Amino acid sequence: MSCIFCKIVSGDIPSKKIYEDENILVIEDINPQALIHVLIITKEHIKSANHLTKENIDVIGKMFLAAKVVAKQMNIDESGYRLINNCGTDGGQSVNHLHIHLLGGEKLGENLR
Amino acid sequence: MSCIFCKIVSGDIPSKKIYEDENILVIEDINPQALIHVLIITKEHIKSANHLTKENIDVIGKMFLAAKVVAKQMNIDESGYRLINNCGTDGGQSVNHLHIHLLGGEKLGENLR
Repeated sequence: MSCIFCKIVSGDIPSKKIYEDENILVIEDINPQALIHVLIITKEHIKSANHLTKENIDVIGKMFLAAKVVAKQMNIDESGYRLINNCGTDGGQSVNHLHIHLLGGEKLGENLR
Repeated sequence: MSCIFCKIVSGDIPSKKIYEDENILVIEDINPQALIHVLIITKEHIKSANHLTKENIDVIGKMFLAAKVVAKQMNIDESGYRLINNCGTDGGQSVNHLHIHLLGGEKLGENLR
């Protein structure tokens, strides 16, 4: 097991947990790009969004519901936030384990590229 | 009905359709920020990701599966892509109808903010 997110899920690598349930772990990003920047990680090792199938697609809903819980917890549910999934090389995916960035706490820019 | 995406879904406003199924419509973004930039839109009017609940959460999985189909169709499934949901004011949500931006066709930047 060489996946850094699997090691975070298992506790072999410590992390600052924001939220956890049966399927999802939310941790702080170690290089935050906004006042609030957390990572929503699946506990199951799924390589990327492009590896989601009808069989495991439910997990993405669980990730979005976790995002909503965390946004409320951090008091940005009304001000708003951005959810980003980088998929593959061109998408800028840095860890090959499905995760969604949640950024907020300030007005985010219009550049999505 | 004043929602522009509802009008696009109903056909009252013309759009260039990339993909369509029972729940989802994918159209070209009229102000593309990358070589490929499409919008994955729910047919149902849901205000934002923060308005997803256990009752309607399945639609987000359908959006991600549609993204995967479109990525393959556009030949960027292997090179990669970025999926972005802007939610609320700070997130930069411009239309209050749930949609996900899919960008690709080139190496995207590292700035998520």
